[in-house]
Amino acid sequence: MPLRRCLALALAVSLAASATADEAKHTPTAKELIAKSQPSEWRAPDPQNLLVMDLPQGRVVIELAPSFAPLHVTNIRTMAHEHYYDGLAIVRVHDNFVTQWGDPASDDNGDKSKLKPLGSAKDKLPPEYTRPYDAKLPFTVLKDGDFYAPEVGFSEGFPAARDKASGQEWLTHCYGMVGVGRDIDPETGSGSELYAVIGQAPRALDRNIAVVGRVLQGIEYLSGLPRGTGPLGFYEKPEQRIAIRSVRLASDLPADQRPHLEVLRTDSATFAAIVDAKRNRLDDFYRLPVHKVDVCSVSIPVRDIKTSH
Amino acid sequence: MPLRRCLALALAVSLAASATADEAKHTPTAKELIAKSQPSEWRAPDPQNLLVMDLPQGRVVIELAPSFAPLHVTNIRTMAHEHYYDGLAIVRVHDNFVTQWGDPASDDNGDKSKLKPLGSAKDKLPPEYTRPYDAKLPFTVLKDGDFYAPEVGFSEGFPAARDKASGQEWLTHCYGMVGVGRDIDPETGSGSELYAVIGQAPRALDRNIAVVGRVLQGIEYLSGLPRGTGPLGFYEKPEQRIAIRSVRLASDLPADQRPHLEVLRTDSATFAAIVDAKRNRLDDFYRLPVHKVDVCSVSIPVRDIKTSH
Repeated sequence: MPLRRCLALALAVSLAASATADEAKHTPTAKELIAKSQPSEWRAPDPQNLLVMDLPQGRVVIELAPSFAPLHVTNIRTMAHEHYYDGLAIVRVHDNFVTQWGDPASDDNGDKSKLKPLGSAKDKLPPEYTRPYDAKLPFTVLKDGDFYAPEVGFSEGFPAARDKASGQEWLTHCYGMVGVGRDIDPETGSGSELYAVIGQAPRALDRNIAVVGRVLQGIEYLSGLPRGTGPLGFYEKPEQRIAIRSVRLASDLPADQRPHLEVLRTDSATFAAIVDAKRNRLDDFYRLPVHKVDVCSVSIPVRDIKTSH
Repeated sequence: MPLRRCLALALAVSLAASATADEAKHTPTAKELIAKSQPSEWRAPDPQNLLVMDLPQGRVVIELAPSFAPLHVTNIRTMAHEHYYDGLAIVRVHDNFVTQWGDPASDDNGDKSKLKPLGSAKDKLPPEYTRPYDAKLPFTVLKDGDFYAPEVGFSEGFPAARDKASGQEWLTHCYGMVGVGRDIDPETGSGSELYAVIGQAPRALDRNIAVVGRVLQGIEYLSGLPRGTGPLGFYEKPEQRIAIRSVRLASDLPADQRPHLEVLRTDSATFAAIVDAKRNRLDDFYRLPVHKVDVCSVSIPVRDIKTSH
């Protein structure tokens, strides 16, 4: 790899130092730590929790979080199973905020008769913005604390927060998290319009909206799109929208079309080591470690076992 | 504006509520607050501090911060004045991190003889990662505090941090901030390779690299690009790169080609009110205000006085 390309910026050393690093002076890289991980530290998400969205640009795979938003996830599964999303579109790319997809008819006019029917899915659900705090639920605390919440960490592979005082737990709006668009009424969200975060974590949305999952693969097909120039980043012209070819649950796909992803367990020793290396990052490039890491700056590793084996 | 479009998500109410809001129940929107601002609360950046980059997609305008990185800004001005950047390219789009531009020859090979000459500009500069703490320098403290730094706020229009104990002040790596790519050696940065932040604020870079400014206009032409698929987000094929038509200081442009931007003063009452409204956001959509705002979640308003008058 050419020197300047390799060393150009920031993460450079993560990749370059593996062969030559004086390990005593360098925090290990995520790549090095992953290379030493155990198979038992990885999990293959339940195919019923994998939402597979095929766009002209490529495939986006979202892991759903039924333990945080069970009714919404059930509704989304119903819509995917009945092919509701097929032929809908990405209608909004709001810079430094969200990419949103759904029924373009909801954008073009206020005439609800033109909306695609939701089939067996419900068109309104009660808000599932939080779940009850329960010390028995999986939660790996991030010891660094948080700017917004009393406690943050990771629960079953998702960044999350909790507050013993209010008795609530919730998923945090980090980059790549997926939420349910809604109107003013908290009960207007169904999952027919979804968005993914593509900018600075909009943590003020936490507990104001239902978060249903995280993009495991293909976030670049949502984040690397031209921004909408209308209000709120909506595309102004129908031809700017990106048509959704299909959205399926992995469990509904033929075996040879399913994604084969594994996610590093957020309660594993390797994940803890990756978080710690990020927290204390010190190498030839990062001369001044910050000794802290915020929950939305941690990347939860995903690997494609189809391509890596 | 159709209802669902208008109310689809989040910022919706900011725009929709202006006419109908019960003001006692709603925090004002930035738009409402700006409408009431005084002309004296806005400043027109010095044309010598405006770097104007014309891309095929559109124009990117960056405000330079000479008070934080004077040697780097001087060098960048020299390069712009001598048309160094013309014909170079965006070579790297690293998802959730940075878009970087510079000399593709540094990417294609390690042969320094193929690099475009820097002209009168210096090829190495001392690190300007911080400046001395000085209570007399402009600094509007953000009372909410910060996850990473002892104190944050805004200085002359830029998000910044300071630490009385270490005697340092520095610009923070928020979305849209512009920094100087470098190799391992802290003295290898010249400004010939620059990057803009396009993801979650990589605050661990703070004080490890020279930050030289902020994108005032056109960030969407940097953030809305296809992501590079090579290591570190570099484009793998030369034809994927986006050629830079020209980079000029506004002061070197004919009057009719200059941008006409004004930036809301970060020490103004209106800016304080906008920050406060974001901090305590409560409206029909945001039922649960978070009562905090982090320095990288504040948008510093910019207006185009050519198009708005």
